[in-house]
Amino acid sequence: MIDILNDEYYMSLALNMAAKASGQTGINPVVGCVVVKEGRILGIGTHLKRGEGHAEVHALAMAGDEAKGATVYVTLEPCSHHGKTPPCCELIIASGAARVVVAAADPNPVVSGRGIQRLREHGIDVSVGLMESKSRALNEKFNKYITSRLPFVTLKTASTLDGKIATEQGDSKWVTGPVAREQTHTLRHQHTAIMVGIGTALADDPMLTTRAAVPAIHPVRIIVDSKLSLPLDARVVVDKSAPTILLTTDQADQAKKELLLQAGVDVIACGSGPEVDLTYALAELGRREISSILLEGGGKLSGAMLDHELIDKVVLYYATKFIGGAQAPQNIALRGRTFMSEAISLDGVQVEMAGEDICVTGYPRYTAD
Amino acid sequence: MIDILNDEYYMSLALNMAAKASGQTGINPVVGCVVVKEGRILGIGTHLKRGEGHAEVHALAMAGDEAKGATVYVTLEPCSHHGKTPPCCELIIASGAARVVVAAADPNPVVSGRGIQRLREHGIDVSVGLMESKSRALNEKFNKYITSRLPFVTLKTASTLDGKIATEQGDSKWVTGPVAREQTHTLRHQHTAIMVGIGTALADDPMLTTRAAVPAIHPVRIIVDSKLSLPLDARVVVDKSAPTILLTTDQADQAKKELLLQAGVDVIACGSGPEVDLTYALAELGRREISSILLEGGGKLSGAMLDHELIDKVVLYYATKFIGGAQAPQNIALRGRTFMSEAISLDGVQVEMAGEDICVTGYPRYTAD
Repeated sequence: MIDILNDEYYMSLALNMAAKASGQTGINPVVGCVVVKEGRILGIGTHLKRGEGHAEVHALAMAGDEAKGATVYVTLEPCSHHGKTPPCCELIIASGAARVVVAAADPNPVVSGRGIQRLREHGIDVSVGLMESKSRALNEKFNKYITSRLPFVTLKTASTLDGKIATEQGDSKWVTGPVAREQTHTLRHQHTAIMVGIGTALADDPMLTTRAAVPAIHPVRIIVDSKLSLPLDARVVVDKSAPTILLTTDQADQAKKELLLQAGVDVIACGSGPEVDLTYALAELGRREISSILLEGGGKLSGAMLDHELIDKVVLYYATKFIGGAQAPQNIALRGRTFMSEAISLDGVQVEMAGEDICVTGYPRYTAD
Repeated sequence: MIDILNDEYYMSLALNMAAKASGQTGINPVVGCVVVKEGRILGIGTHLKRGEGHAEVHALAMAGDEAKGATVYVTLEPCSHHGKTPPCCELIIASGAARVVVAAADPNPVVSGRGIQRLREHGIDVSVGLMESKSRALNEKFNKYITSRLPFVTLKTASTLDGKIATEQGDSKWVTGPVAREQTHTLRHQHTAIMVGIGTALADDPMLTTRAAVPAIHPVRIIVDSKLSLPLDARVVVDKSAPTILLTTDQADQAKKELLLQAGVDVIACGSGPEVDLTYALAELGRREISSILLEGGGKLSGAMLDHELIDKVVLYYATKFIGGAQAPQNIALRGRTFMSEAISLDGVQVEMAGEDICVTGYPRYTAD
């Protein structure tokens, strides 16, 4: 297929640059920028790391003096406030750019529209909304966090078509195939943290790191462990490949807590127990700038998180097979509803193959229709 | 998209005609035929009813004397034996057709290739294999039955993404949406019989008929009822919209059996009990020319049928929602395997949306890789 030369031609490049930086900007959004004049790309940039240059800074620096009269394509509204870097609006104005095309306005209601207004006040022709849904999807984690200070939680499961994540005897090697597993490691790279229940941590002694074909970013490891049962020689304690946080309760053994703290593990008491107060836990993780979490089970924790309406997105892999067993663990063990009409439905469902497996993604809708 | 004028141009018409007759030819295959000469379609035909004209008979009758020198496109090898109608091979030879294009050879090993050979002996140019897989897929039920005398069984389920077909309290209205339900009624039209367990029959008192936007064929109703618990006033007993067969065991109450027989229900004892011998049952249904069965649950019967390797195809609808409940009934409750490597996998998986629901189809592979 031949790309057609128009505004989308350049904005799609800006979006692609932003997308590839997913996972490396911390609590910041991913943003791409392309500066174009008279049929030539003069500068490209993407925001790569929190505290460092925004996309517009890089792109305009590359364009230099030629930016005068140019069109600036940017996937997110340029900032108008002094943060860790000077406001991009002023930079664009100073560059002499004639036109700015913005995919999506800033999701932060406090500043949304201000950057656009500021550019227009200086006579710059500003268009907003080109490929907006793609830009918003790229920053769905950022948008949740910036507006709520709560982490965006993606639930990932891998089950058979009868909804089982292991056999009754606990065998789970393997449910899904290599493509689904590679995608899962990519998801780890793209989330600030990974979360599992203590059952998973005890059963598999997982590393919870990102293993990709190329070097990747390891997520912060979060284990929901109400009784602090995690052994001191667990891989997540000793391997130091990424920080580890245990979520527990006030009832947890204080001596064990001390030992874990000494071993370098962070321990957060979430409520008086006996179960971890998950709603409190997410607020506390948000305060620690954990802006996104990949929840990888098991079924009971996933069900509890769904019951507490704490899951923003689901990525469900189904291997095309049946394993059986009434006691075999379930992909998502949520509280049983009485009526089918009380089910938690998904919005924005997409279904595609991931190698030999089926991948269903969507966004839980918690309020009744 | 513009169809390209070539052999497929005509064969695809023959296949479409055959497909639309699915469900109305009894134990016979569906077949379509197109007769073409000098760029003009001279005749079209499809087999419509067992005991009546084959596709070639209709198409050649329409073509008349003009068939001399024509090309005959036919989706299945023309018959060479005297069955309920004279052999189509002789008809084609007598018509003077110059070329025959066959999608698939006859699946019956006893006669496969004979028709093709007979045509070639008479100097007709015969090609075999054009769009063969589509022809075989259309007649997958016929192909199973003609080679084994066992019904082709399609398992259909409708569950949530956590694999539940109802809530713990039994509510199942509705799991899936209108498109999945319309497709299900189309599947009923296309199968000789429908099968459910006594649990489903007692819970819902279903009619098990085909309700479509246009008049449709009702399947024979088969209920697996080891204890003959079906009440005499059940809809499937009293409504007479289609024959009803109960599968039971020698242990069943003979007085109840007499009352059911008097009410016009057929009762087949399958083994000495306490459970219905499903393998025996399918053989017995095959002897009664039930060539295809749509199995519509519940989960235990579906699981037992899968455990006994009696399911040929699955059509699994997943509503994109979660209902929860450890005791909520499962889409397919098969015997638990010990190792994930013992799972029953699907071949030929296809995934598509059916309105708001996900539809997964495939063919269970029972022998180990």
